[in-house]
Amino acid sequence: MLRKPKILDRRIVAQSRLFRVEEVDLEFANGARRTFERVPGGTDSVMIVPMLDAETVLLIREYGAGSDRYELGLPKGVVEAGEDPLAAADREIQEEIGYGARDLRIIKRVSLVPGYIEHHSLIVLARDLYPKSLPGDEPEPIEVVPWRLDAIDALLAREDFDEARSVAALFIALRVMGREPRP
Amino acid sequence: MLRKPKILDRRIVAQSRLFRVEEVDLEFANGARRTFERVPGGTDSVMIVPMLDAETVLLIREYGAGSDRYELGLPKGVVEAGEDPLAAADREIQEEIGYGARDLRIIKRVSLVPGYIEHHSLIVLARDLYPKSLPGDEPEPIEVVPWRLDAIDALLAREDFDEARSVAALFIALRVMGREPRP
Repeated sequence: MLRKPKILDRRIVAQSRLFRVEEVDLEFANGARRTFERVPGGTDSVMIVPMLDAETVLLIREYGAGSDRYELGLPKGVVEAGEDPLAAADREIQEEIGYGARDLRIIKRVSLVPGYIEHHSLIVLARDLYPKSLPGDEPEPIEVVPWRLDAIDALLAREDFDEARSVAALFIALRVMGREPRP
Repeated sequence: MLRKPKILDRRIVAQSRLFRVEEVDLEFANGARRTFERVPGGTDSVMIVPMLDAETVLLIREYGAGSDRYELGLPKGVVEAGEDPLAAADREIQEEIGYGARDLRIIKRVSLVPGYIEHHSLIVLARDLYPKSLPGDEPEPIEVVPWRLDAIDALLAREDFDEARSVAALFIALRVMGREPRP
């Protein structure tokens, strides 16, 4: 059984509007000491796999400020303080793709960069969609891109479909829906 | 065709040993202006899917300073300046799992948090392994966990197998190896 390293000290070393970086001094069970940087917590986000029908997932194309290019991926967003994660997922798809969902289900909680960043994201499978829109805060309209599940290899081959979380979410959803037989 | 937003200004707003945060003022094609924070570039990292045999992938268990817990996932690391990515992948598995690979192949380049972070990671499928060790800089020995591909649902159900990049890498490797039939 692994015993977690003991935190000897921690201090904030950088801070911006969105990011806070702390330095932690750790002592591992074997006595080894290391100092690591990490970006602490915050609330979970959600990423949604919205199924228009049994064969079609709705992707979005939107500008990523980190990658500085347009990215094809799944709708996502932050869970507001006090908001239920499934309500957040339903709100995000109304804002980003113009649909609400009658059937929402958390299928996995994932980390993005667990070596450095504490943040987690809930993957939500959304089915039984119906047209419903909410205004979002996006700087320009988000393009909605329906994609057939039988063309998933063509999707994976695209350079602009590259967010690890979108890839993971799609495959987990496929398994949950029984679309990916066991190896 | 989408026209990328124009960068009007950019400035560093926070800086630590590992992280640099910049603020960018953007003007979108429709005239909308936004200020975003982003963490620029650096070199790619690698994440490796090391196949011990056709049925068995080698996972590692290691402490994640971001999540502050032990994580089950795939071996990974930074590509050093001037280093070939496949050489980096081969070095990382020698350091982390005690095997080299005669067959290394990049199967996808993924982003981790494209909305905020520029960093990308190359997913490398490693086959034809042979025992070979290099000393790493880990604070404690890394536990190697062989996992059979026919038990992938049990793996996905584990809370400590949660890094989106590991999930994505494993599924992409399965498809490349022809183990996941088309939906």
